[in-house]
Amino acid sequence: MTVARTVELEGHIIDSGIMQQCFETVMEMGGNFDVEEFDVGRHKDAESYARLRIVADDEETLQSIVHELHQIGVNPTEPQDAQLEPAPEDQVVPTGFYSTTNHPTQIRVDGEWWDVEDMEMDCAVVVDRETGTATTKVLNAIDEDDLVVVGEAGIRVDPPERPRDGGGPFGFMQGGVSAERPSESLIAEVADAMQETKDEGGKILAVAGPALIHSGAGDALAALVREGYIDGLSAGNGFAVHDVERGMYGTSLGMDIETLEHPRKGHKHHIYAISEVIRSGSIPEAIEDGKIQEGVMYECVQNDVDYVLAGSIRDDGPLPDTISDTVEAQNAIREQAHEADMVLMMSTLLHSVAVGNCLPSTTKVVCVDINPATVTQLLDRGSAQAIGMVTDIGTFVPTLAENLLGDEAGEETGIYE
Amino acid sequence: MTVARTVELEGHIIDSGIMQQCFETVMEMGGNFDVEEFDVGRHKDAESYARLRIVADDEETLQSIVHELHQIGVNPTEPQDAQLEPAPEDQVVPTGFYSTTNHPTQIRVDGEWWDVEDMEMDCAVVVDRETGTATTKVLNAIDEDDLVVVGEAGIRVDPPERPRDGGGPFGFMQGGVSAERPSESLIAEVADAMQETKDEGGKILAVAGPALIHSGAGDALAALVREGYIDGLSAGNGFAVHDVERGMYGTSLGMDIETLEHPRKGHKHHIYAISEVIRSGSIPEAIEDGKIQEGVMYECVQNDVDYVLAGSIRDDGPLPDTISDTVEAQNAIREQAHEADMVLMMSTLLHSVAVGNCLPSTTKVVCVDINPATVTQLLDRGSAQAIGMVTDIGTFVPTLAENLLGDEAGEETGIYE
Amino acid sequence: MTVARTVELEGHIIDSGIMQQCFETVMEMGGNFDVEEFDVGRHKDAESYARLRIVADDEETLQSIVHELHQIGVNPTEPQDAQLEPAPEDQVVPTGFYSTTNHPTQIRVDGEWWDVEDMEMDCAVVVDRETGTATTKVLNAIDEDDLVVVGEAGIRVDPPERPRDGGGPFGFMQGGVSAERPSESLIAEVADAMQETKDEGGKILAVAGPALIHSGAGDALAALVREGYIDGLSAGNGFAVHDVERGMYGTSLGMDIETLEHPRKGHKHHIYAISEVIRSGSIPEAIEDGKIQEGVMYECVQNDVDYVLAGSIRDDGPLPDTISDTVEAQNAIREQAHEADMVLMMSTLLHSVAVGNCLPSTTKVVCVDINPATVTQLLDRGSAQAIGMVTDIGTFVPTLAENLLGDEAGEETGIYE
Amino acid sequence: MTVARTVELEGHIIDSGIMQQCFETVMEMGGNFDVEEFDVGRHKDAESYARLRIVADDEETLQSIVHELHQIGVNPTEPQDAQLEPAPEDQVVPTGFYSTTNHPTQIRVDGEWWDVEDMEMDCAVVVDRETGTATTKVLNAIDEDDLVVVGEAGIRVDPPERPRDGGGPFGFMQGGVSAERPSESLIAEVADAMQETKDEGGKILAVAGPALIHSGAGDALAALVREGYIDGLSAGNGFAVHDVERGMYGTSLGMDIETLEHPRKGHKHHIYAISEVIRSGSIPEAIEDGKIQEGVMYECVQNDVDYVLAGSIRDDGPLPDTISDTVEAQNAIREQAHEADMVLMMSTLLHSVAVGNCLPSTTKVVCVDINPATVTQLLDRGSAQAIGMVTDIGTFVPTLAENLLGDEAGEETGIYE
Repeated sequence: MTVARTVELEGHIIDSGIMQQCFETVMEMGGNFDVEEFDVGRHKDAESYARLRIVADDEETLQSIVHELHQIGVNPTEPQDAQLEPAPEDQVVPTGFYSTTNHPTQIRVDGEWWDVEDMEMDCAVVVDRETGTATTKVLNAIDEDDLVVVGEAGIRVDPPERPRDGGGPFGFMQGGVSAERPSESLIAEVADAMQETKDEGGKILAVAGPALIHSGAGDALAALVREGYIDGLSAGNGFAVHDVERGMYGTSLGMDIETLEHPRKGHKHHIYAISEVIRSGSIPEAIEDGKIQEGVMYECVQNDVDYVLAGSIRDDGPLPDTISDTVEAQNAIREQAHEADMVLMMSTLLHSVAVGNCLPSTTKVVCVDINPATVTQLLDRGSAQAIGMVTDIGTFVPTLAENLLGDEAGEETGIYE
Repeated sequence: MTVARTVELEGHIIDSGIMQQCFETVMEMGGNFDVEEFDVGRHKDAESYARLRIVADDEETLQSIVHELHQIGVNPTEPQDAQLEPAPEDQVVPTGFYSTTNHPTQIRVDGEWWDVEDMEMDCAVVVDRETGTATTKVLNAIDEDDLVVVGEAGIRVDPPERPRDGGGPFGFMQGGVSAERPSESLIAEVADAMQETKDEGGKILAVAGPALIHSGAGDALAALVREGYIDGLSAGNGFAVHDVERGMYGTSLGMDIETLEHPRKGHKHHIYAISEVIRSGSIPEAIEDGKIQEGVMYECVQNDVDYVLAGSIRDDGPLPDTISDTVEAQNAIREQAHEADMVLMMSTLLHSVAVGNCLPSTTKVVCVDINPATVTQLLDRGSAQAIGMVTDIGTFVPTLAENLLGDEAGEETGIYE
Repeated sequence: MTVARTVELEGHIIDSGIMQQCFETVMEMGGNFDVEEFDVGRHKDAESYARLRIVADDEETLQSIVHELHQIGVNPTEPQDAQLEPAPEDQVVPTGFYSTTNHPTQIRVDGEWWDVEDMEMDCAVVVDRETGTATTKVLNAIDEDDLVVVGEAGIRVDPPERPRDGGGPFGFMQGGVSAERPSESLIAEVADAMQETKDEGGKILAVAGPALIHSGAGDALAALVREGYIDGLSAGNGFAVHDVERGMYGTSLGMDIETLEHPRKGHKHHIYAISEVIRSGSIPEAIEDGKIQEGVMYECVQNDVDYVLAGSIRDDGPLPDTISDTVEAQNAIREQAHEADMVLMMSTLLHSVAVGNCLPSTTKVVCVDINPATVTQLLDRGSAQAIGMVTDIGTFVPTLAENLLGDEAGEETGIYE
Repeated sequence: MTVARTVELEGHIIDSGIMQQCFETVMEMGGNFDVEEFDVGRHKDAESYARLRIVADDEETLQSIVHELHQIGVNPTEPQDAQLEPAPEDQVVPTGFYSTTNHPTQIRVDGEWWDVEDMEMDCAVVVDRETGTATTKVLNAIDEDDLVVVGEAGIRVDPPERPRDGGGPFGFMQGGVSAERPSESLIAEVADAMQETKDEGGKILAVAGPALIHSGAGDALAALVREGYIDGLSAGNGFAVHDVERGMYGTSLGMDIETLEHPRKGHKHHIYAISEVIRSGSIPEAIEDGKIQEGVMYECVQNDVDYVLAGSIRDDGPLPDTISDTVEAQNAIREQAHEADMVLMMSTLLHSVAVGNCLPSTTKVVCVDINPATVTQLLDRGSAQAIGMVTDIGTFVPTLAENLLGDEAGEETGIYE
């Protein structure tokens, strides 16, 4: 006795690799298939179509296979409505709830396909029939009686196809992270992509770790904020502390970034910087008090660039501006992530993963870190439009700024004195 | 016009390097010195004594130098009382407050030297005349009217001398982290140090990241917990999720750790594990419900081993057991850290730094990570009794367990089937 | 005006990814295609067949595309004979010579397909009509008048299909290297693969760097040699020096591997070890003189295991046994590589790349290093049967030996004393 | 029964750390000491003097201790002549020969102190009474009857004192390698040090790996060669091949460095580049033939900059210009190293170690690599004037060139188009 279901694929299903993935998935999961129809695109612009009959030994295996398949965009031919169940309690999902991917997704409600809003992975999908919306919700945001999608049926996932022509910075690097690439050319391509994003009215989110400040790239990032290239900053307490320390004392972790001298008392600067901000009440108030007169945080405040400082257990202080509750911080990050059209992840694994968790697979992402393992881990998260660079953040940001702002800005940022 | 102050050093001031550091510090900070007296220990067991007159061009420089010097254990000959000032508000320290090192410290109150309790770095020192105690407080724990030590005077720091004979695991590795060391011998030495700590009634704190579970070392750590070698666990939501996932589904990040197969639906296991724990209410309740029957968390609960799961912004869920507020989590970690006599930091930078921040320089620390940069960063934090190993956590913990529990335990943990 | 040629594909062309690669290649190189015939395998055991007409704007583009395609196993339908040209001088290939891949390859001579022997990449193919053979030759081995294949025609490349079922250690890891895998289980799988290779009468080549000795794994490797699990050793002068140093003085780089003590004069041991071997004349003679009584080199000599010590510019000495000419050393390595059925690459990038350069894509390869970048670089070289492990060689080899030789051997090798 | 010897130390023996090292050495090796005299420098410019009586249980221990001490510059008060013995055969040193450090060294012959010429570590010292010279010789260069220094007596080592003021690029980084330093400022300091070296008529040796070309820094290095900032190039076959490939095809490893496109046939370019150079006879002849018209090798040939291409077992080809014998290559490298006043080690471990092995501890060294482990390993070799940078070679060289040559050169090198 076997059970079967028919599925179909459409689009550039061969050169996008979906056909291959589909075949592999069925075989690895112990199923079998018959190709019922296969219209291959006869030239490179034509789309293909395939209809397969998936066969398995039991219903459970079959469901697993079908579940897997639709995650890569292979969908049942005879769609059913998604099954909905009310959440039994706050924060408690119904058993067997559908857990999302980060790809654009639709669910079928009353015979119609609804787009799921605010796509991000590892969420439940909650349907609101009154407003006619389906939205992702993380587990801790579930309210009692939310209508949650369960099971496998009535869900359609549409992974973005990879760029056909392999062009542009977001095409050429798929499938590999390497330090051995032409750095200056790559940075120029990233600059072009940023300029394009801004020209189209898009928003760029910068995710930055304290190493950016230690490595002397703070001025260049501040210039990018000032000149309007950064629409949001997602960072941690440490980033802000070291940036503020620089603004107050000219040092980062106690080292003078320009003279490279290490004033002996410098290693206390960061804790004094924190206490000064606490005394003022917040970073904007410390700026108002004249305590901070430059730096990334300064430019964010002066230019109304939205920033989220998320707390972590290694924080000193923390600053009053830091959101110490991680769930609350995630919610703030989620909002930033959903608004961003392009994200620069710079020298922070923690914050990059946190932002990455909230991104749909369609957002452009640039990951920059000197540690190849960090870049690999970030790219592994399944964005279709991500590039990774293993480079020095201390030369990356100034070179990027120079590309976008010209030599003049370079001089202004003190790069070539 | 110059100003001067007399300082003195005592102990193994040459071979401990303090003498050298002292000279370097004065010179680097623009001061000068006269050696007024120098009694060198004439053989290796004798202590030395030196009295120096520090000279600087102005009082500010002099104070900076004296401040630096006492951080390495060089103290003024004519001690003054520490200067105390009330905190103006909750969380606000007086200007110029003394920020601590992680070394044993005394402050002088009413002519007497009081030990500062709960030493950790980057804190304020708060004096309570009623109870006769001086204690460290992090900035956010300061209460209005707390008597806080300010300035440089009346403070004595006593950095632990490095072991003289270079013996034992905590002696031989000073000054270097390298993957090219005899791994099995080193692990045996760590096992000996753990056994010794337990024999002396000491407490061992394990700090662990999720990579420990992914790399298949969970059973071995669970065995160490069960057999009483671990007195506390400091981890994050991710560690607990992946450990619980293993206990529920036999997978970690979706991979079966024994067969190495990757059940296709496995990548959803972690989110289902979370929702099951939420449904039960907590990890102990999920254990009671029979949902979790093995693993590190299971053994912690069954054996009353204290655990802290600290939240972070990359958490899925989080589990109800996770402390989502980072300040609250730091306080819980602080308690663990203060009680520990030995700390194993395993495959987590974030949690290791958080614990390390709260440790006095006298606690034994073992840092294990496959990334040499992580080990270096952790060892840099100034513990006198720290060793680092660049090794694979997936073989480290099983080998450690085998050393402590014997082959039998090895078999029980499924290592040699 | 366009030009066209017809090509065909056969086998598991969809799930092996060749179909996708073929389409991508044509499009990226500016060509176009028509699918003239496409018989898709209707279930998972059936093979597929496709015939495409490749169209390009000019002959040069077309030839480039066809050249690319046959490198992935897509061959012209109307085969021509390979074009042969005599080499004009020793070491000089004819212009436009065909440079090999590392995949099994056939060339068409006088209407028949000949297998190319000793496949390795970046070679010329030399045809000897008298003996009826086609063989790879590196550039510096070309003799004047050798008949060398030029151009694109008459060459058929057959890249090995990836294992269908994803099972076994050489299946599951395609497409990723990560430290976060269950180490002990992986090592057990490597042991199984070694046992299987030996059971089938295959040969195992160990490629080892000096870090293996420093990390204390020398005894375990020596035991594997003694027990017949290693049929060849490919290493450098440094490996042999440090192994011999251990045999003579019990130290490696001056550190006693068991007591972890660092006898002060130890840092001269390696240079003394070299001078003692030079005095004896060679390693075998130093063994005969009783100077070396244990270690990897000792076991190789005693058990007639073939070893190649290849020289490099960082060598001390070098030992008389070291082949100082790199071209001569490559030839010796080439012979080892061609004979091996399985290769363990352990903690050496230089020697692993040298061996890997000479391997056909069908040889089983295990790459072990603590540096993920090294493992990635080695796996990138295109073996179809390669796995990578980011782990500590100092625990890897002992655990491997324990899996193969049992606990007894473990005790003998001093692992659990 | 104990034995004793008197030793003395002079100079900045405390702040240079020698005093501490001396005490530690004696204690670690099981000896004891009496401080017979100790005149401490009373201010920072004064030198100190100490005379110690070293006591040990037996003559062998004592000799070991004395041997160790003079390696750090602590010498016997009653010097004896060095003991000389003829080498019994070519390449065979007398038993017990003295193996050198890389510090400036003198030996006592006939009551006089002779400087040892061409200092490098792990060598024998050969005395020629006729010419009145003492010179280092590596083991394979020893000729029969060479008078070789044996034993411990009559040798004086003078390790360079570390810079007192901690200033300049070669002062501030002692004791640490970190990616978290202000990159642009550091590069500016390296540029200053290069300019200074050239202004003083010194020679700068560039040691470079192929990653420099892949990462797009070839033009910038070529510009530095052209403008006279590089006096020698030490590289391998791979560096030259990829540089020449770029000059011929505009690609590196098949990727177009400016457009970032990957012409499909590009992966064969490197082997074609090699065959073209072989056809011409050598790189200079290929330049004469007009095959190579730009690049690092081109500029070296045009500007008479001495280059050494050392062979290794991973070489393709090799090029006719590559020295395939490693001993011969070491000799060529040795000459380069002895002539250099400053060495830039860029993105190659193998060649950097080879050069580093031949350098006295007084040569300025800058190590640049993206892998922190490489930088650490290179700095560990004991140069007193070495700095390490963990950065991206692809931005390092262009930024360095811009610092030295100005924006104009930057534009010329195509950095800002």
